[in-house]
Amino acid sequence: MIKPIGSDELQPRFIYDDSEHDKLSKEAEGLPSVVISSQAAGNAVMMGGGYFNPLKGFMNVADAMGAAEKMTLTDGSFFPVPVMCLLENADAIGNAKRIALRDPNVDGNPVLAIMDVEAIEQVSDAQMKIMTDKVYRTDDSEHPGVAAFNSQGQTAVSGPIQVLNFSYFQTEFPDTFRTAVEIRNEIAERGWKKIVAFQTRNPMHLAHEELCHMAMERLGCDGLVIHMLLGKLKPGDIPAPVRDAAIRKMVEVYFPPNSAMVTGYGFDMLYAGPREAVLHAYFRQNMGATHFIIGRDHAGVGDYYGAFDAQTIFEDEVPAGAMDIEIFKADHTAWSKKLNKVVMMCEAPDHEKDDFVLLSGTKVREMLGNGEAPPKEFSRPEVAKILIDYYQSLN
Amino acid sequence: MIKPIGSDELQPRFIYDDSEHDKLSKEAEGLPSVVISSQAAGNAVMMGGGYFNPLKGFMNVADAMGAAEKMTLTDGSFFPVPVMCLLENADAIGNAKRIALRDPNVDGNPVLAIMDVEAIEQVSDAQMKIMTDKVYRTDDSEHPGVAAFNSQGQTAVSGPIQVLNFSYFQTEFPDTFRTAVEIRNEIAERGWKKIVAFQTRNPMHLAHEELCHMAMERLGCDGLVIHMLLGKLKPGDIPAPVRDAAIRKMVEVYFPPNSAMVTGYGFDMLYAGPREAVLHAYFRQNMGATHFIIGRDHAGVGDYYGAFDAQTIFEDEVPAGAMDIEIFKADHTAWSKKLNKVVMMCEAPDHEKDDFVLLSGTKVREMLGNGEAPPKEFSRPEVAKILIDYYQSLN
Repeated sequence: MIKPIGSDELQPRFIYDDSEHDKLSKEAEGLPSVVISSQAAGNAVMMGGGYFNPLKGFMNVADAMGAAEKMTLTDGSFFPVPVMCLLENADAIGNAKRIALRDPNVDGNPVLAIMDVEAIEQVSDAQMKIMTDKVYRTDDSEHPGVAAFNSQGQTAVSGPIQVLNFSYFQTEFPDTFRTAVEIRNEIAERGWKKIVAFQTRNPMHLAHEELCHMAMERLGCDGLVIHMLLGKLKPGDIPAPVRDAAIRKMVEVYFPPNSAMVTGYGFDMLYAGPREAVLHAYFRQNMGATHFIIGRDHAGVGDYYGAFDAQTIFEDEVPAGAMDIEIFKADHTAWSKKLNKVVMMCEAPDHEKDDFVLLSGTKVREMLGNGEAPPKEFSRPEVAKILIDYYQSLN
Repeated sequence: MIKPIGSDELQPRFIYDDSEHDKLSKEAEGLPSVVISSQAAGNAVMMGGGYFNPLKGFMNVADAMGAAEKMTLTDGSFFPVPVMCLLENADAIGNAKRIALRDPNVDGNPVLAIMDVEAIEQVSDAQMKIMTDKVYRTDDSEHPGVAAFNSQGQTAVSGPIQVLNFSYFQTEFPDTFRTAVEIRNEIAERGWKKIVAFQTRNPMHLAHEELCHMAMERLGCDGLVIHMLLGKLKPGDIPAPVRDAAIRKMVEVYFPPNSAMVTGYGFDMLYAGPREAVLHAYFRQNMGATHFIIGRDHAGVGDYYGAFDAQTIFEDEVPAGAMDIEIFKADHTAWSKKLNKVVMMCEAPDHEKDDFVLLSGTKVREMLGNGEAPPKEFSRPEVAKILIDYYQSLN
């Protein structure tokens, strides 16, 4: 199996040993504690599950600046984005060497992790600007990722962590949330050798399904890991159980047995486009994938990034040899009326826009809300049925 | 976490190391091979997943007789049933020291495991009879477990195995099949401390759901593992995806977040009543459960066993200290019209049969087939809807 990044075996920061876990949980209740930001909590969950291997905890400012500026930490190791625990202030910490990090996203703010405090540093305005400029390619405060990053405070507390739970992700998405440890394990048990990962936050329509089939076929993969970003719902989002049911039904009907896994991970979206694509590839290698699909506008927002920046960054900026996972470069896919099948749009240069079956998200939601299945060139009927049932249940 | 039986850490027989797996898969193609029985294949899958820890492979006749007669192997260790690889003959093996065991349940009979052959022995008619008498409490050839056991042949090949896949279970039940390794892992990640396991082969109606709630509440459990026996379907069985959907919907709606896992294991039913109950408890400890629910007529068939034999065997026959898992003794549960709730029938001694809402399986299937939901005292409406949709789709 493909090795994790930076070590021969995955070294998750979650404490699996039961008595150690009990001991730490008790200790945590007596420690000085801080409620951390949602972004920091997401980072802790990812480190807990082994996704950010070999990171042991939150970066100090020098490492974070290195990650932002050249994806390289002070010890020369590779990491594509800063992983920071930024606070408004460190008053609650004092001189403590060990502190409890409390979860901002769960009632009562239970302890998510214990940190060995190695440094407490102030991040200057200039450093904050460099980091956003590098990671988000903008310091525009309208950019949702920049806004979230800047809203945390400028006091960086850093050091290794021991993770005690997986926040609300395990609880709210029990059938889908999986750690990198679990996914590696299951890949081994399924006997897959060549595995492509697909990132999604939404139910998958025919174009997404066919993109996965294309990637598997062209790469010769025996396994597909559909890997959903899980997180709090925004109004209008399709609830996780419905999205899951739709994706599972698609897998059941349209994928051969033992060829696809439906899983998810707990993290906040960065909207960092190309840099986030590199992070996405990074943690897919850690979970055991050999290939990762990156399409047009991957992890982007607004018009901050060029359509294929999230692909070219792998050649232009990622240090050579930093990762073993390979990128499957894709374009949007859509049904071609001329060819009567789903094609990658860049591979149909003679097509005009009208030659494709294209529907906006708004239009699709409107149809489903009216109990109307989108055309079969757009949606599998089994998937449409699940989504229609959901929208009808809202009325 | 509760320790596995017989070792501090689980020692699954599946080969998780990728390069070792490749090496063995190649080696296997050149080895003499035998197609094993479905029962032996089920045993191999269970050993692969760590459920039969610390067994390393198939028992020789002395160990199998010890297991049958007093649940004790020749080295003094505990195991509740013989785990044998019985063949019609060993002609294909010759003097080979290493052989491939081929899967009878998958097209093309792929290699399921490699065995280091330690012994090839003939089992006498008398020994076969002792084993069935002890394990099944009968040698009646009409008993489905006895019939299956006796149909395999009387040549026992024994020795440690290295398991290479999980037969059709992983393939056909991808969302539900779990190894003991995976379940232990997930229990740790969920942070559960006291876990009760529930055995089922069917969708769960209100009485089963309430039995689980009762067990959790009385035992003070923070986790429930619903653990389905997976296997080939018999005509009239509800397909796995429908059963899964019904159970997952029940968990989603009627269990608090992070309190229940929906999982399954791959094995053939033995119908060995009390002995099978002990085996069921054995492998639940190995997967990390601290408690196991055993009700009336557990794993029985016909009238071979007394209603509570599967409970009393734990006091009467299981060697003291053999297992750490504890049994939650249950009776049938049903809705009481007098008390307006589900009760354990033995705890309502003043009730007559008519005081309960009882429906036969045949009656329930008939109602569902007619698109009629059973009364809410019998079925949750959300569960009934899924089952009705399925039965309607057959018409």
